[in-house]
Amino acid sequence: MAQKPSIPKGTRDFTPPEVRKRQYIFSCIQQVFEAYAYQPIETPAYELLETLTGKYGEEGDKLMFKLLPRGEKLSSFKEGKSGIEEALRYDLTVPFARFVVQHQHELVFPFKRYQIQPVWRADKPQKGRYREFYQCDVDVIGSDSLLNEVELIQMIQDVFLKLNIPSVRIKLNNRKLLSALATYMGAPDRMMDITIALDKLDKVGEQKVKEELLKKGLSASVVDKLDDLMKLQGTNEDKLNQLNLMFQGIPEGQKGIQEVQEVLALTGSLGIKNMELDLTLARGLNYYTGAIFEVKSNDFPSSLLGGGRYDDLTGIFGLSGVSGVGVSFGADRIYDLMEQLSLFPSYIQLANQVFFINFGVEEIKAVLPKASLLRKEGVSVEVYPSAAPLKKQFKYADQSKIRWVVVAGTQEMAQDQWKLKDMHSGNEELLSWESLLQKCKSM
Amino acid sequence: MAQKPSIPKGTRDFTPPEVRKRQYIFSCIQQVFEAYAYQPIETPAYELLETLTGKYGEEGDKLMFKLLPRGEKLSSFKEGKSGIEEALRYDLTVPFARFVVQHQHELVFPFKRYQIQPVWRADKPQKGRYREFYQCDVDVIGSDSLLNEVELIQMIQDVFLKLNIPSVRIKLNNRKLLSALATYMGAPDRMMDITIALDKLDKVGEQKVKEELLKKGLSASVVDKLDDLMKLQGTNEDKLNQLNLMFQGIPEGQKGIQEVQEVLALTGSLGIKNMELDLTLARGLNYYTGAIFEVKSNDFPSSLLGGGRYDDLTGIFGLSGVSGVGVSFGADRIYDLMEQLSLFPSYIQLANQVFFINFGVEEIKAVLPKASLLRKEGVSVEVYPSAAPLKKQFKYADQSKIRWVVVAGTQEMAQDQWKLKDMHSGNEELLSWESLLQKCKSM
Repeated sequence: MAQKPSIPKGTRDFTPPEVRKRQYIFSCIQQVFEAYAYQPIETPAYELLETLTGKYGEEGDKLMFKLLPRGEKLSSFKEGKSGIEEALRYDLTVPFARFVVQHQHELVFPFKRYQIQPVWRADKPQKGRYREFYQCDVDVIGSDSLLNEVELIQMIQDVFLKLNIPSVRIKLNNRKLLSALATYMGAPDRMMDITIALDKLDKVGEQKVKEELLKKGLSASVVDKLDDLMKLQGTNEDKLNQLNLMFQGIPEGQKGIQEVQEVLALTGSLGIKNMELDLTLARGLNYYTGAIFEVKSNDFPSSLLGGGRYDDLTGIFGLSGVSGVGVSFGADRIYDLMEQLSLFPSYIQLANQVFFINFGVEEIKAVLPKASLLRKEGVSVEVYPSAAPLKKQFKYADQSKIRWVVVAGTQEMAQDQWKLKDMHSGNEELLSWESLLQKCKSM
Repeated sequence: MAQKPSIPKGTRDFTPPEVRKRQYIFSCIQQVFEAYAYQPIETPAYELLETLTGKYGEEGDKLMFKLLPRGEKLSSFKEGKSGIEEALRYDLTVPFARFVVQHQHELVFPFKRYQIQPVWRADKPQKGRYREFYQCDVDVIGSDSLLNEVELIQMIQDVFLKLNIPSVRIKLNNRKLLSALATYMGAPDRMMDITIALDKLDKVGEQKVKEELLKKGLSASVVDKLDDLMKLQGTNEDKLNQLNLMFQGIPEGQKGIQEVQEVLALTGSLGIKNMELDLTLARGLNYYTGAIFEVKSNDFPSSLLGGGRYDDLTGIFGLSGVSGVGVSFGADRIYDLMEQLSLFPSYIQLANQVFFINFGVEEIKAVLPKASLLRKEGVSVEVYPSAAPLKKQFKYADQSKIRWVVVAGTQEMAQDQWKLKDMHSGNEELLSWESLLQKCKSM
């Protein structure tokens, strides 16, 4: 019996219209990366297990897709010494760090790279969460200048403008502010717990955040200090003024405020008005050391981008003291949002396709060279592969959403009369070959 | 101690210049596919094991990269009932057949698709053979017209012309001729053995081919009949005339000759002169049923493309009676050949990159909006991220192979004087902003 075909859960096939929409997103993002002179790299789909293990926490290690060694039988594995040496990449950041260290002598620093490739996570599949999805990463490594943060924000702005996605908010935080907050609350060694709890504020509300902290053993007086954070309001400038008062005498806080101010001043002078300072933003805090970024849309529940500055990501691979900053666009979420808001331009679905009716072998001998001429002019041309009944060929053109159909038999071609039918309007016109060529070129 | 970074054997990192060269190949191939109105699809990197198993022979099953189930411990596996359900795709043809059957009600037939994605094989890595490599497949399914074969040959010709690869030969054979050959030799049921042996003729020579057949139990009188095949020579037409005599009274042979003649006549009338009828060409014979294709270059040992017609590939997934034909471009081999012959155009390595020297925060406030203006005109612009010593910034520009450097301090900008340095010639000129903009646009 034949197999009923299906695909692994959490993965997707992409039909032609879907691929074209995805290519449109990748291409817009890539154009912005290129405009800022970032350079493309690619790394293998799978890495050595030791490269990935321990970089994403216990959960990440579990969700990594590991590869069975070639030809091995399972029975020959022994626990602990399993022979498993490779796993599919889990993100693009760790492979990038590995790449930078491995190729450090071929690279010029600061190294500005982008990378658009799929990653794999054996997560529980659900709406909007896939086991195979694309990341579009852009990073600059080897420079601690805040101008890099500013440039990333410019690129974020350019990408969402290009994609015509309305009302995104670019959220900004700084690890130094989070650290200062813990000091301010009187629990400098509990920064992690505090930020992990705060990160959930959006979803669970103030009360639950406080409960979590109390449960983790923070005293009520410490937890109550959070109220000052909750009271932060107004413009970014207002918030910074209030933070300035709170963090007096906390050097790290002052440094954080200064960094945020500098970034906001420069982006503001460039006309970027949708920046939002958000002290509850934490993200993969474990390796961020300065700026933290996120992009949110009111029309979408999850973030569309995340990133930040990391001061020693390459250290684990033997190259220390190199600061980097970068962001990752979530192409699949951007896709879902654009689909939801009907933002894909219609022209990306092949507008200039011309279809030649096939009347038989003799006619086709005359049609094929003509089709080649049109293709040389950049027109996408299809010739029906057999002399099927006209009705069938027109039905094919119609179902394939082809707009222009050329109908010409031997006699018509001998008289240089090519009938062009517009499948949208139903109109037909008789054209000389030269006129047809001109018309197709200008479609 | 820090890990010494490396990647799995048989895989590769791609640095920016390499990615650009690869993108150039993919883009040329894709442009040709689009010109012929083929539609892009994508499938997941890994498929259900049952989709792939048994489709590539015993060797293929062994070389497939299988994925460990999420979070499972190896000790919990039992031989035979291992729980392994997924594997990385091994080629694009079987996933395509699976796709066609699964999505048959959304597709319009004949369905013309292309697919450019990596595949993985746990082969023994060696020069030119990788464990991760790209295939660029183009197929039409749902039509048995020979016009499809002709169109594929046109596309092959267009791709290699576009890539400027000289002197490729498009080899053509037909499964029906191979079948007739076995009948002619008096061993109709040994076609497989005969073609497998013949396929090696290039590498091992006539004598070894005959020895292999004798070893497989074919009689000397049968094997000697191969001499008639070896004597085939002259033009394609000459060969067909000789085959016509050999295959008199063998209907399948006559049909094969007729098919080849029709394809050669049409491609010939389109000016394609590098077709080569080659009766020893067999390739993945197991599923080919009609035409068989291969592209060879005198400058490269391995074939650059392979393909053919298959009459029932979708049958295994429950959709029978659907004929298809397609070819697969080997992008990695094409890359190696182009590198060897220095065929990559130099313009693909970012010619229009403009670099702004950074003199400090005040200057940068004036430079950033100007850089944005240039980017809006399609120029790739980089601003050095910090006010490092001039010497260091110039060294960076030089090492990054940037040609145009803009040097302007506060005073110069106030006077609308922008110094543009050409790093190739060393020349400098003073330009107004408007002139600079015009110059950059026309680079």
